[in-house]
Amino acid sequence: MAILDTIKGPADVKRLPAEQLPALAEEIRERIIRACADNGGHIGPNLGVVELTLALHRVFTTPEDSFTFDVAHQGYVHKLLTGRNGPEFDKIRLTGGLNGFLKRDESEHDAFGAGHAGTALSAAVGMAAARDLRGGKEHVVALIGDAALTCGVTMEALNNIATSCKRLIIILNDNERSIDKNVGAIPDYLSQLITNPMYNRANHDLEQFLKGVPGGEHLIRIGSRIKQETKDFVTGQASLFEKFGVRYIGPVDGHNLELLTRYLEFCKNQEGPVLLHVRTIKGKGCEVALKNPEKFHGCSPFVIETGEAKSPVKPGTPPNWQDVFGKSLEKYARKDPRIVGITGAMPSGTSLSVMRDKLPGQYFDVGIAEEHAVIFAAGMATKGLKPVVAIYSTFLQRAFDMIMHDVCLQNLDVTFCMDRAGLSPNDGATHHGLFDIAYLRCLPRTVVMQPKDEDELADMVHTAVQHNGPAFVRYPRGAAVGATIKAEPALLEIGKAEVLKPGAEVQLWALGTWCEDARKLAAELEAAHPGLKVGVVNARFAKPLDTALLAAQAKSAKLIVTLEDHTVVGGFGSAVVEALADAGVTTPVVRIGWPDKFIHHGNSVAGLRAENGLSPEQVFTKVDTRLKSLV
Amino acid sequence: MAILDTIKGPADVKRLPAEQLPALAEEIRERIIRACADNGGHIGPNLGVVELTLALHRVFTTPEDSFTFDVAHQGYVHKLLTGRNGPEFDKIRLTGGLNGFLKRDESEHDAFGAGHAGTALSAAVGMAAARDLRGGKEHVVALIGDAALTCGVTMEALNNIATSCKRLIIILNDNERSIDKNVGAIPDYLSQLITNPMYNRANHDLEQFLKGVPGGEHLIRIGSRIKQETKDFVTGQASLFEKFGVRYIGPVDGHNLELLTRYLEFCKNQEGPVLLHVRTIKGKGCEVALKNPEKFHGCSPFVIETGEAKSPVKPGTPPNWQDVFGKSLEKYARKDPRIVGITGAMPSGTSLSVMRDKLPGQYFDVGIAEEHAVIFAAGMATKGLKPVVAIYSTFLQRAFDMIMHDVCLQNLDVTFCMDRAGLSPNDGATHHGLFDIAYLRCLPRTVVMQPKDEDELADMVHTAVQHNGPAFVRYPRGAAVGATIKAEPALLEIGKAEVLKPGAEVQLWALGTWCEDARKLAAELEAAHPGLKVGVVNARFAKPLDTALLAAQAKSAKLIVTLEDHTVVGGFGSAVVEALADAGVTTPVVRIGWPDKFIHHGNSVAGLRAENGLSPEQVFTKVDTRLKSLV
Repeated sequence: MAILDTIKGPADVKRLPAEQLPALAEEIRERIIRACADNGGHIGPNLGVVELTLALHRVFTTPEDSFTFDVAHQGYVHKLLTGRNGPEFDKIRLTGGLNGFLKRDESEHDAFGAGHAGTALSAAVGMAAARDLRGGKEHVVALIGDAALTCGVTMEALNNIATSCKRLIIILNDNERSIDKNVGAIPDYLSQLITNPMYNRANHDLEQFLKGVPGGEHLIRIGSRIKQETKDFVTGQASLFEKFGVRYIGPVDGHNLELLTRYLEFCKNQEGPVLLHVRTIKGKGCEVALKNPEKFHGCSPFVIETGEAKSPVKPGTPPNWQDVFGKSLEKYARKDPRIVGITGAMPSGTSLSVMRDKLPGQYFDVGIAEEHAVIFAAGMATKGLKPVVAIYSTFLQRAFDMIMHDVCLQNLDVTFCMDRAGLSPNDGATHHGLFDIAYLRCLPRTVVMQPKDEDELADMVHTAVQHNGPAFVRYPRGAAVGATIKAEPALLEIGKAEVLKPGAEVQLWALGTWCEDARKLAAELEAAHPGLKVGVVNARFAKPLDTALLAAQAKSAKLIVTLEDHTVVGGFGSAVVEALADAGVTTPVVRIGWPDKFIHHGNSVAGLRAENGLSPEQVFTKVDTRLKSLV
Repeated sequence: MAILDTIKGPADVKRLPAEQLPALAEEIRERIIRACADNGGHIGPNLGVVELTLALHRVFTTPEDSFTFDVAHQGYVHKLLTGRNGPEFDKIRLTGGLNGFLKRDESEHDAFGAGHAGTALSAAVGMAAARDLRGGKEHVVALIGDAALTCGVTMEALNNIATSCKRLIIILNDNERSIDKNVGAIPDYLSQLITNPMYNRANHDLEQFLKGVPGGEHLIRIGSRIKQETKDFVTGQASLFEKFGVRYIGPVDGHNLELLTRYLEFCKNQEGPVLLHVRTIKGKGCEVALKNPEKFHGCSPFVIETGEAKSPVKPGTPPNWQDVFGKSLEKYARKDPRIVGITGAMPSGTSLSVMRDKLPGQYFDVGIAEEHAVIFAAGMATKGLKPVVAIYSTFLQRAFDMIMHDVCLQNLDVTFCMDRAGLSPNDGATHHGLFDIAYLRCLPRTVVMQPKDEDELADMVHTAVQHNGPAFVRYPRGAAVGATIKAEPALLEIGKAEVLKPGAEVQLWALGTWCEDARKLAAELEAAHPGLKVGVVNARFAKPLDTALLAAQAKSAKLIVTLEDHTVVGGFGSAVVEALADAGVTTPVVRIGWPDKFIHHGNSVAGLRAENGLSPEQVFTKVDTRLKSLV
């Protein structure tokens, strides 16, 4: 690790003799592979951009120049080169370690944080426009993946470049993948570009030309005649990007450091917006990642030699919530051809891959295009289908307007199955699904539910699909609780809660996974207060709430406690206090949920709960204290 | 009105001899002009599509075939031709009349409702995919405006057509305008297509060809040889759309009925996705609308001959909230060059036109691209600017994820000034801004405020811009209340409410325009209950709430009443009951706000309030009843 240890910041990258760069690249790859093998992480995307990131830091100077990274899950190399190559790197995605994405509050070299796709170009256009307004001279470089071009917001930004800013450098990091395989016309188009002999010749010429100029850094002095010729070489044919007023250059081998550096110098000296198309190989330098790019986009801890999971699932571990969803949906869809599954480039992440593999005719992957996914589903529903959109809770935020305007307002029969509702501990704030109950329950006609176990998840997916209107099922990341799934799902009554344990003075209203915590809490409270009867209710529905049961219980209870995996602002507990106020019942309510702040990443849900006042002991104390304060 | 009166549905349109169509078109125009002159409405877009809509109903058969209309504010002709040409049309946008947009529950011929831009293509792709899955034979036609192409979701849909469905007909209604002038590269590109001699020749050839075929309806029998030739004529050159696997045909004169019909027949018989580029003139047939297309995109009632407003603003009428915003911002931006205004194609609607006209260097119109608008603002904020996004409350729903992920999570200094927060009475459910408090206050770091009068609006815009973080100012459509605006704005303390009238037993907590209603309500309650002291608080902030004042008042009050122009689910009143629960105060709360349902259109806010239990009398009764029920 000799060379990487000497890199205290980007200045050291620039100072390094060029002949040491390949060795540095190798050290970086080793370091990333080791960290991902230990902690899990976005190994594939990061191994693909080692040379590209090195070249960027050779040519540009952060933090004066600004880099924006789309999704920002390919920022590990950038982190290592910008003063974050100490032990905090080896603990990446763990408690006390670096975040797995870029974050403005982690380093001044992180010009823009991310975690959701498609934002980098838009942010870069804003930065460039601001620079131009201020008369600044710095460079703004947007590094976007080919999948970013399937996001509408990237296209909105592309459409605005020419009118909004004078100069902008876009690096299109093209590895032919989003997370799973790319879909749609734009990826096809990129393939055409790559195989177009006209482009290849033009690039070959440019390459020769650049090689012939002593020192790429002197390209700044290229006169207008040569520029024009180069332009003719490169843009021998109109490209999609040139229709947007962006000059297209490429494709160039993203693992050839010398060539990349020359191309970047060339881009740096362009007077207008320019896009450099770079071809990279996801997972380069790691054999197992190259063999299985989908699995090694973002991986769990693994054995470097074999690629096998380090902590293989122990026999008896419950299945993941998402897998129960995927299998249930496939089972229902097999019987009812109206049921179709829709994903936005996340078949593996949502387990909609079960539909893809077993019922491909009823499966649609629309790319990273959540807005389209939802309206597409709404359009299908008007023709009598029963579409199910499988999506992460925070990614569904992208389609909030469509949920309101296209689905709920028209009362269309679309089901949403929302994974990662609650924490996605290693990912952090961009992926924690802590806002969905609030943003969904304010909309008329929504049905919002969360199961207490995997059997109830199967029931809820069935119930949501059968319900003739918008229905949302939320469930967390990770393993379910170990319940046996019935042979045939039950149709749940919409808006009906389930009493898990009768009570009297205290009633615990729990949503989803908090049901189990509530049972334990009830036992502890009863143990601490002899004679106290603590009831436990599985709310099932955040909306419509079982207000009849709630009001009836509250009238004779001293205390109501709500428990949820969601922010306390506007969520399930909020629905409970609203309902009690409307019913004219003044029983005190303690609301247990995530505090009104962004929750960072960490090793585990339990650890993050403890950090945020939600450990079993803290919750007990909070409820117990309130109980004691009541006469 | 002889011919139009005979049209009871699309079958009658088909039955009509072709020579009567021009007369029918004229009748339709007269009817639309009269309705818009009486009621206001989207006159420009509708006058532009008279012939196009006639041709669509001649060639296709709804409801078997499905039309989707982008924004759906150009559906008046379609309404008139599909059984809605009675008195309900003349009351369009008024109580008891038709909605100004298309709505599925208004007619079986409205395949998809809308009100926000960019959804038509996505919905059509969903419909076509569903049709293909079912093995249906019907046609799906998406009518999109040129401005729809600046919306990301349209581009997402475009990217998915080739992989999702077999056949689809897209009509690009190109009038070179969104609402104000279009911005960005795509509109420029369309202009290039129009002036490209290659395209013009190709179309001329196609035109001749079609004219030579006896009866356009027989084009179905064109053999493959001729098809190929035609294809060669038309697609002599790759276009943007062909990169997406969509065959481009056009441009064609959108006011030549015969030609349009032939082109549509041609499109109807294509086996793959096809886009017909139609050139129309917004406002055609109405002189005043042609002269001022921006004003007559959507108009208020006007005198047909002069174009002047029918109910000119009476002297002494307070200014519109939006104008106070526009002028205030311009005043502050003049002193502080870091302040920039950003709009998504709504400079007139938001009054950001003041910035455009007076400080063009600090003004950015990004097109109908709300997602990009917000990230663009976030990018600018990272470079030290103070961007202000001026946007309608419901349109901001498009950027919900960006507010969370790009602005709040990074704690960037972006201000949002949200017009149409509350009702937009004539527009209806798609435009009522009734959800913003709920979807904003659940996010950490948000500051959400609403002024009681125009002076406080000026203060709040100033306060939001000065606040170093995300801040949201909401205000309704229409005239403010008539307060005098101070020479220099005051900096409000974040999270501090204002006591308008001291009280004791009852405390009315009002947000925004409800402050005035609360004063009157307080007087009525005191009159009805001698000795009762009713306080009135101008909450100012829905978040952070002035919980200290609230808890202090509640401890000694018998009843708290919240009043807001927002759904009661998750809004300001919800924040109040949450705060009281957390403070352990059990004072009863009555929450006054819009019920949990979609509110339709109507003549006025007062009328819609009365329909929904929110008239002054109804509110008095609700509060009085609760008051009497308390011991």
